[in-house]
Amino acid sequence: MKITGFDTFDVRFPTSRQLDGSDAMNPNPDYSAAYLIVKTDAAGPDGDQLAGGVLAGYSYVFTIGRGNDIQLNAIRALEPLVAGLDLDSDLDLGGLSRRLIADSPLRWLGPERGVVHMAIGAVVNACWDLAARRAGLPLWRLLASLTPEQIADLVDFRYLADALTRDEAIGLLERGAEGKAERIKLLERDGFPAYTTTPGWLGYSDEQLAALCRAAVAAGFDQVKLKVGAKLEDDVRRIQIAREAVGDRVAIALDANQVWDVPTAISWMRALARFEPDWIEEPTSPDDILGTAVIRREISPVRVATGEHVANRIVFKQLLQAGAIDVMQIDACRVAGVNENLANLLLAAKFGVPVCPHAGGVGLCELVQHLAMFDYVALSGTTERRFIEWIDHLHEHFVNPAVVRDGRYVAPTAPGASTQMWSRSVAEYSFPDGAAWS
Amino acid sequence: MKITGFDTFDVRFPTSRQLDGSDAMNPNPDYSAAYLIVKTDAAGPDGDQLAGGVLAGYSYVFTIGRGNDIQLNAIRALEPLVAGLDLDSDLDLGGLSRRLIADSPLRWLGPERGVVHMAIGAVVNACWDLAARRAGLPLWRLLASLTPEQIADLVDFRYLADALTRDEAIGLLERGAEGKAERIKLLERDGFPAYTTTPGWLGYSDEQLAALCRAAVAAGFDQVKLKVGAKLEDDVRRIQIAREAVGDRVAIALDANQVWDVPTAISWMRALARFEPDWIEEPTSPDDILGTAVIRREISPVRVATGEHVANRIVFKQLLQAGAIDVMQIDACRVAGVNENLANLLLAAKFGVPVCPHAGGVGLCELVQHLAMFDYVALSGTTERRFIEWIDHLHEHFVNPAVVRDGRYVAPTAPGASTQMWSRSVAEYSFPDGAAWS
Repeated sequence: MKITGFDTFDVRFPTSRQLDGSDAMNPNPDYSAAYLIVKTDAAGPDGDQLAGGVLAGYSYVFTIGRGNDIQLNAIRALEPLVAGLDLDSDLDLGGLSRRLIADSPLRWLGPERGVVHMAIGAVVNACWDLAARRAGLPLWRLLASLTPEQIADLVDFRYLADALTRDEAIGLLERGAEGKAERIKLLERDGFPAYTTTPGWLGYSDEQLAALCRAAVAAGFDQVKLKVGAKLEDDVRRIQIAREAVGDRVAIALDANQVWDVPTAISWMRALARFEPDWIEEPTSPDDILGTAVIRREISPVRVATGEHVANRIVFKQLLQAGAIDVMQIDACRVAGVNENLANLLLAAKFGVPVCPHAGGVGLCELVQHLAMFDYVALSGTTERRFIEWIDHLHEHFVNPAVVRDGRYVAPTAPGASTQMWSRSVAEYSFPDGAAWS
Repeated sequence: MKITGFDTFDVRFPTSRQLDGSDAMNPNPDYSAAYLIVKTDAAGPDGDQLAGGVLAGYSYVFTIGRGNDIQLNAIRALEPLVAGLDLDSDLDLGGLSRRLIADSPLRWLGPERGVVHMAIGAVVNACWDLAARRAGLPLWRLLASLTPEQIADLVDFRYLADALTRDEAIGLLERGAEGKAERIKLLERDGFPAYTTTPGWLGYSDEQLAALCRAAVAAGFDQVKLKVGAKLEDDVRRIQIAREAVGDRVAIALDANQVWDVPTAISWMRALARFEPDWIEEPTSPDDILGTAVIRREISPVRVATGEHVANRIVFKQLLQAGAIDVMQIDACRVAGVNENLANLLLAAKFGVPVCPHAGGVGLCELVQHLAMFDYVALSGTTERRFIEWIDHLHEHFVNPAVVRDGRYVAPTAPGASTQMWSRSVAEYSFPDGAAWS
């Protein structure tokens, strides 16, 4: 059984029409997926017309509109490195991930950052979806079934030696495995905590904000998140509206989406500290490790979160070494896929920092929930101060959508990584020829 | 007079056939240019058939082969943001640079790193070439003719406030302007110091290495650079061969091209310190600011250099803040063009770190010499411990090639940024249809 090749699709949703997803850096995104199907010559469920009835792995890079085609082009450039691989003898996903990252001509275009790195992530994630489908397990359970040594084999420890060795990683995983079976049961029964950003987009009116905050409380969420950073007086007003709507028991996190430099972040957050936000997210550039560390020191006890735009494990390593973050936010599609996110989870475990994944977008909730659930059952061992972001958009386009009930993600049971979109959604929202764009 | 659009060309040179350019990370590169022509509707010299006789700006991103098409695709995606701009009323290059960097859908694909950021660099650099042609000046002279305020207007200070404000930049430029006229004369008379990497590729035999080292001394170079990092015993032998060939007066710099992690870099360089290398370049990942700082502290007095793969001014800022580097190596094509490199030069000046640009590749010498010369005449005021890298490959493909004489770059006099390639070279090396590839 071999991988035969890629099919790719430029899928864009016209979210900018309602200002869904609007923040201080990104005023009018069209949430989009550079969608990838890794096809095989094996028989598979014929539910997906796009894959032509063969077994396939599904994945995507999340983008916000224009440029989705650049991302797709980079994904297609990886096809020759993957097509022809035998699913049994060649599909060592640790080796594949390392090979793709180390390919020197493509590495030159990063290295390990930007469009090419995210393209590698899409390919690696699609292969994990494929592997989980073959195993008949949801991805989080497949990962949780691996031994500490098998997990360590999946990780590229290059550039991590000063913070995390393979032996240390195995030690963390051995410790994390204690009580795993019990936690799997708990997770399947109770799900994983979520917080919601649905109320907080910058383009929403005060009335929308208040109504969505009340709805969030009614839906069982313990934390909401608001976008900030465009205008201080607006932020103050909106936080007060949100506080009134959610009451004292529900936490309010804030997200500046990188719009501040270091001094601005400090002064702005000192002005907002009296509202006791649960964290401030992306207070400055995701590349600014030292700046983020200064901000954290200066605005304590307000916590600092970042990660959705962190390029790779090397930057996460330094954010942790520098004591720059209280909350680490992995993203399923920004780095080189499941494998690099395993490295990121191990780094967080080593430094004792909770991981609260970034989600939303298109399909980010679907994919990243598997990583958070693996972290809980097999590594961190706790859901304390851990949440997966939840945004209630676009889930209807997925065959196995993420489900949040009573403020908690329901543990997926379907085989795979929850990444398959409905063929009819792909067709309708294909850019520029789908019905949604004509 | 308007910009009418882009023409792009996938130009690749089969350098891997001779292992030119081989190092520990990149064993067999085909040096390539994602070549861009920004065309106008103004009459121009008709020497370049590719531009069809109109005034145009020329530029490229340097890549090492496969993936050059990904880079070109990203460059083309910027065409709609630039086509139609009026050369007189719209072509504010500070504003253009900021607009391209801040475009939120494309920014999502970085942010400010990788393929999209380099594509912005190509567009900005082509517009500078165009501006210098219109001004009838070589780029370095055009930049040197600007006032401190005009230079400051070109710089995007976003994310720099904790290290460099606009006022500080103007102060540095005012101080740098003292004696500028005199230095311009000296530069035009004496050129700018170069060092050569021509002898040091990892794929060359010991005999080639020795012969090319002797040739480098005979050609007047005061420093050569060797690639290291694949095998310690080979490095020791090659350094000894080089030392014997160049004698005691000529410095030997080393370049590991990112292959080490932090502990390996420290132990490897302790083993090589007895040869008193002038610097070790890219001892680890270019994203590893804190790791590079540790390496520098541990291997002192060996100096540490990095920068050719540094993504942007934010990372350079931190390398300087962390005291991670003794030598800052800007690259003409890695960041968002001339404007971001002005920020990088200002940061270096603020922290008192010498800039020794990375060059070689295809056209990197041609373009970056202008930035080093601007730095000398208008900012740093000195050539002490400053060199531009020189590699004697592929210059014959440029209409105004960089020229090194007696170990020094000759100051360019032709209008523009020296970035225009011969039409016949573009045709011959176009991939995959040019004669060189058939």
